Amino acid sequence: MSLVGVGDVSKRILLGRKLRSAQLGETLLPKRIALPVFASDALSSVAYAPDEVFIMLAIGGVSQYVWSWKVGIAVVLVMAAVIASYRQTVHAYPSGGGDYEVAKVNLGRTAGMTVASALLVDYVLTVAVSISSGANYAASALPALQHHEATVATVMVLLLMALNLRGIRESGRLFAVPTYLFMVAILGMCAFGFVDLAAGSLPMAESADLEITPKEGWDEPLTTFGLVILLARAFSSGCAALTGVEAISNGVPAFQRPKSRNAATTLLLLGLIAATMMISVIVLAKQMGVRFVDPHEFERLTRDGVPVPDGHHQHAVIAQIAHAVFHDFSPGFYFVVTVTGVILVLAANTAFNGFPVLGSILAKDGLAPRALGARGDRLAYSNGIVFLAAMAIVLIVVFDAETTKLIQLYIVGVFVSFNLSQLGMIRHWTRALTTERDAAVRRRIYRSRAINAVGLSFTAVVLVVVVLTKFLAGAWITIVAMAFFFAVMKGIKGHYENVERELAADETDKTLPTRVHAIVLVSKLHKPTLRALAFAKATRPNALEGVYVSVDQKDTARLLEEWDERNTGVPLKVLHSPYREVVKPIVEYASAIRRANPRGVVAVYIPEYVVGRWWEQLLHNQTALRLKGRLLFSPGVMVTSVPYQLRSSEIALEREEREEHRVRPGDLRRGRVGSGDDRQLPR
Amino acid sequence: MSLVGVGDVSKRILLGRKLRSAQLGETLLPKRIALPVFASDALSSVAYAPDEVFIMLAIGGVSQYVWSWKVGIAVVLVMAAVIASYRQTVHAYPSGGGDYEVAKVNLGRTAGMTVASALLVDYVLTVAVSISSGANYAASALPALQHHEATVATVMVLLLMALNLRGIRESGRLFAVPTYLFMVAILGMCAFGFVDLAAGSLPMAESADLEITPKEGWDEPLTTFGLVILLARAFSSGCAALTGVEAISNGVPAFQRPKSRNAATTLLLLGLIAATMMISVIVLAKQMGVRFVDPHEFERLTRDGVPVPDGHHQHAVIAQIAHAVFHDFSPGFYFVVTVTGVILVLAANTAFNGFPVLGSILAKDGLAPRALGARGDRLAYSNGIVFLAAMAIVLIVVFDAETTKLIQLYIVGVFVSFNLSQLGMIRHWTRALTTERDAAVRRRIYRSRAINAVGLSFTAVVLVVVVLTKFLAGAWITIVAMAFFFAVMKGIKGHYENVERELAADETDKTLPTRVHAIVLVSKLHKPTLRALAFAKATRPNALEGVYVSVDQKDTARLLEEWDERNTGVPLKVLHSPYREVVKPIVEYASAIRRANPRGVVAVYIPEYVVGRWWEQLLHNQTALRLKGRLLFSPGVMVTSVPYQLRSSEIALEREEREEHRVRPGDLRRGRVGSGDDRQLPR
Repeated sequence: MSLVGVGDVSKRILLGRKLRSAQLGETLLPKRIALPVFASDALSSVAYAPDEVFIMLAIGGVSQYVWSWKVGIAVVLVMAAVIASYRQTVHAYPSGGGDYEVAKVNLGRTAGMTVASALLVDYVLTVAVSISSGANYAASALPALQHHEATVATVMVLLLMALNLRGIRESGRLFAVPTYLFMVAILGMCAFGFVDLAAGSLPMAESADLEITPKEGWDEPLTTFGLVILLARAFSSGCAALTGVEAISNGVPAFQRPKSRNAATTLLLLGLIAATMMISVIVLAKQMGVRFVDPHEFERLTRDGVPVPDGHHQHAVIAQIAHAVFHDFSPGFYFVVTVTGVILVLAANTAFNGFPVLGSILAKDGLAPRALGARGDRLAYSNGIVFLAAMAIVLIVVFDAETTKLIQLYIVGVFVSFNLSQLGMIRHWTRALTTERDAAVRRRIYRSRAINAVGLSFTAVVLVVVVLTKFLAGAWITIVAMAFFFAVMKGIKGHYENVERELAADETDKTLPTRVHAIVLVSKLHKPTLRALAFAKATRPNALEGVYVSVDQKDTARLLEEWDERNTGVPLKVLHSPYREVVKPIVEYASAIRRANPRGVVAVYIPEYVVGRWWEQLLHNQTALRLKGRLLFSPGVMVTSVPYQLRSSEIALEREEREEHRVRPGDLRRGRVGSGDDRQLPR
Repeated sequence: MSLVGVGDVSKRILLGRKLRSAQLGETLLPKRIALPVFASDALSSVAYAPDEVFIMLAIGGVSQYVWSWKVGIAVVLVMAAVIASYRQTVHAYPSGGGDYEVAKVNLGRTAGMTVASALLVDYVLTVAVSISSGANYAASALPALQHHEATVATVMVLLLMALNLRGIRESGRLFAVPTYLFMVAILGMCAFGFVDLAAGSLPMAESADLEITPKEGWDEPLTTFGLVILLARAFSSGCAALTGVEAISNGVPAFQRPKSRNAATTLLLLGLIAATMMISVIVLAKQMGVRFVDPHEFERLTRDGVPVPDGHHQHAVIAQIAHAVFHDFSPGFYFVVTVTGVILVLAANTAFNGFPVLGSILAKDGLAPRALGARGDRLAYSNGIVFLAAMAIVLIVVFDAETTKLIQLYIVGVFVSFNLSQLGMIRHWTRALTTERDAAVRRRIYRSRAINAVGLSFTAVVLVVVVLTKFLAGAWITIVAMAFFFAVMKGIKGHYENVERELAADETDKTLPTRVHAIVLVSKLHKPTLRALAFAKATRPNALEGVYVSVDQKDTARLLEEWDERNTGVPLKVLHSPYREVVKPIVEYASAIRRANPRGVVAVYIPEYVVGRWWEQLLHNQTALRLKGRLLFSPGVMVTSVPYQLRSSEIALEREEREEHRVRPGDLRRGRVGSGDDRQLPR
């Protein structure tokens, strides 16, 4: 019987033939596609990181803006160190386990779990920060959305959630087009700006005529200590630009061969582009006189000595630059703002894709429910997606979609995993040195270890700075959340280990049951019952009987009559249940049989209807379900479902079929496109 | 192993030994207990029915209040006819099927379904009306609650829902005490009033000095037609007093022997008490000058020509009488108002008890999901209770807990079932006459039929009056809801019939499968797997093999090694699944075996862990669950769960135990107390 419905046929015509398994190799990513697939998260941070640098410097007043490009260069230096480090990682760990694997293998399970908790928190924050920033850009383009950013952001998260629950087929093109457009937009805009700058005709930003009152206690002249603190805060906020650079190390298996080398090259490219953007934006903003303060402190902004009016809206730095550079060409402004918004949404989507991937890796190690490890468990995927969206929405609502506040929570987690990963890499190389004898290889290992050591020293400093400057501002929330995830993973691991110990096979498990007593549950004498009887008979048990729970005398008499007529050759046991209980008499009867023969086994055969529609399922098998659940607790009893497929079951089978071919989030970055081949299920 | 935990022991000491099945007979209800158990719904309507009569008469101004006691007498006449009719029903149908059974047996399934829909709607309205009225009384006693009646009512419904979900042990005493107190309170209050009246010292009600402007278009003098309409509306609202009198006809099995006779006597008593209360309250209210208008039309109330101020609160008629009669004894007032409130809550609880009873009767006839028919299906019970509460809350919120508005929806359903039930009874007696030859019996039958005919003529008139006067005021909502329930029941019946046709056994179902090919799923080589292998071996299949889905080469190699070491004597088939899919390869393998041998059957043995805590269940068996669900769709495959009970499974078993002993709503009125005996489950 063909299972292809009309809908499926028409869909196939529209979408083209599905990819066969054999074709999967062809979908590995070339560098030009891998770059946009993995870069959206890292590149998108240029949409908010410069703003945060300016906000922090503004604490000391506009005069501190002279430090802006120096802070930018410090951030870029750290970025260079981190990227050099990760280039070592992709060579050493091409399996795509990323930071988690590096930490676990080299530093042990606790370090691995710490990195995993940091990553889980980071996924939530990636969604919250990117979408909040995206809502801010949306409000720049559509002033009607101003002061409704939290609502806009919440709706966007819900949309992303819905798309991911539905299963969006991530294609390279989906990422390539907007990511390249974003590069063109930002780099193009900066090029325009620098040309103007060289020509001396650089226009001023809209906020250039504002003055900024330093925050109380930060008035000039700053003490050296004060200046250090100010710069440290600006620097640690700027380090938000580093979020997402580790993505490629998780995606090595999706690259075309030579995988590691291509991944390393892509990583280098990503670093160059990100650094260029970051520095260009900061320098231009400084030159154009951009003024940027914490949106809660607009009272510090004055124009000609008069505070800005209530309801003042502060456009993001990139929006201000675009507005000024393209002043007499508004499509340019809208283009920059739109692609920036799109890239931020793509960055958030990254988290939706990365979350289940991490879940399945953790599941494999017994740190997350095992169901997350199996592909195709839609329920597990869906729960993860809903959880991620819900947490992100909570953050967005609590922090009113203000990127500045959310950023305080963001960077701790990222740098925790950077640090543990670098430390792990150093351990990795040191260990490699103990066995490696080839002098040339040893030299390369020494070099790699040096790179990772430099990386570690940079990231360690940043982590200390970040924790010191941001702990009270929100980083403590991240640390608490990490501790929570850590405890949950530890609990799950402990549970699985206990179960494993309890279940370990020993020598006592070799005895065979001596006897099989089969009982077939009978509710009516119809096809499902007859099939169950036939199947039970086919297993040739030592004893076989039908069991009927009698709740009504008339029905019972009718059944007994039919039973005799049919002449099934099987005796029928009637259990009386005056109070209409069905489950309990059967459980008790099965237990009684088992007690009479403790070395035997009782096989309970349950005829089951298989129907297709959800409401049909409500109308059938509820008692069978309860019975099965209850019988599982009776030792020495095994429960056999003998299905009888009703015609409507085909609906469910077709639905199941479609489900199997559906894309799961994260497929692309794991180098998968199809979920298998497109043969029809054999019946 | 004993399953009695400390908690259970202490509970047993506190609550006394649970009743054994054998003792159940002793819990049948004597008349003095049956009366309060079944009367709360019918008696409680005296708390709002008189108010509605006065509201309707007030449309024509205070002068129309002269009709009040005449309307009351008309209502009492209808009540007498209905009660006489139901006394016939309890003799003819002692099984407790009530109106539904009478209509179904005598008038066919369509009539039965109509009555069932009416009853379903009525249960919802009983909750909504009783609780709304109760909230009004609560506001009379606690003025702080005034103008928050809808909130109070919603909270009360939620509380009732929670209690019923939890399972409250209904005892006769629970009903007896408040119901008898209510009778004492109302009849005592009326007695006081009549003594005062006789002595000429009857105090005036608080509203006696108000004047009522007739509604526009109803100014005096009324035309005869206008008067008829006015009286018809007052009468049909007064008929709210009849709701609930049918309860006893559903509860005959719970009475002590002779059941029917005791039920009939109790019904007569109920009628006498209800009629006395109704008439007494109306007469007293009239004599005390109570003024009562629709709470939306307070602008029609004036005192000395000046409209009452905003925020005026109108106390219920009984509250006004109590306030005046006990003017120098406020405990008397609070006593009357409190017991009235309590009886209204009990009346609402009646619906929570009746709903599942009706559900199980409908399930037996294939009009509701079959699961509702089995006792102990907690899920089904819970869904019913939540549904009932949710619908009632919707009505309460939409109609702002105003009894006057809700009453417009209430009476249609009640009288639809009265009418169909009377018609059914007439048909019943007529049929009885065709076979009965004994002249004395025939005379009795003639008399009974005459009573039912009179009952029908009364209720038919009322139904017509109610539909005419209330259709636009809200009765249409009831009719739409009834049509909806009717359609759902029809759909369910049709579905079950289709399935039955599809499943009917015929001669082709006698062939036995020729061969059993057993496969045991292996994920690890631990106790559950070994047990499943042992059980599968014990069934001596024609072929037996272990099946392992390989997703990781290292794990596979380790398992193969262990398998060889163990020397299980069973071959192990390894299915490769590079994309970590587990379910699909197994389903395909099972189908392939079946295709190779279409007359054989494939037995799939799944080792299952049995754990006790909900979160443990999340951590285990998810894949087994999906696999079982999927294999049900493969013809010729049977699925056997081989459970392995982990230590924590005892937690679940104990929970299950407690669950079984829990009371279900409606037990009392079905003559049940315990859910079976109190032996421990055998293990």
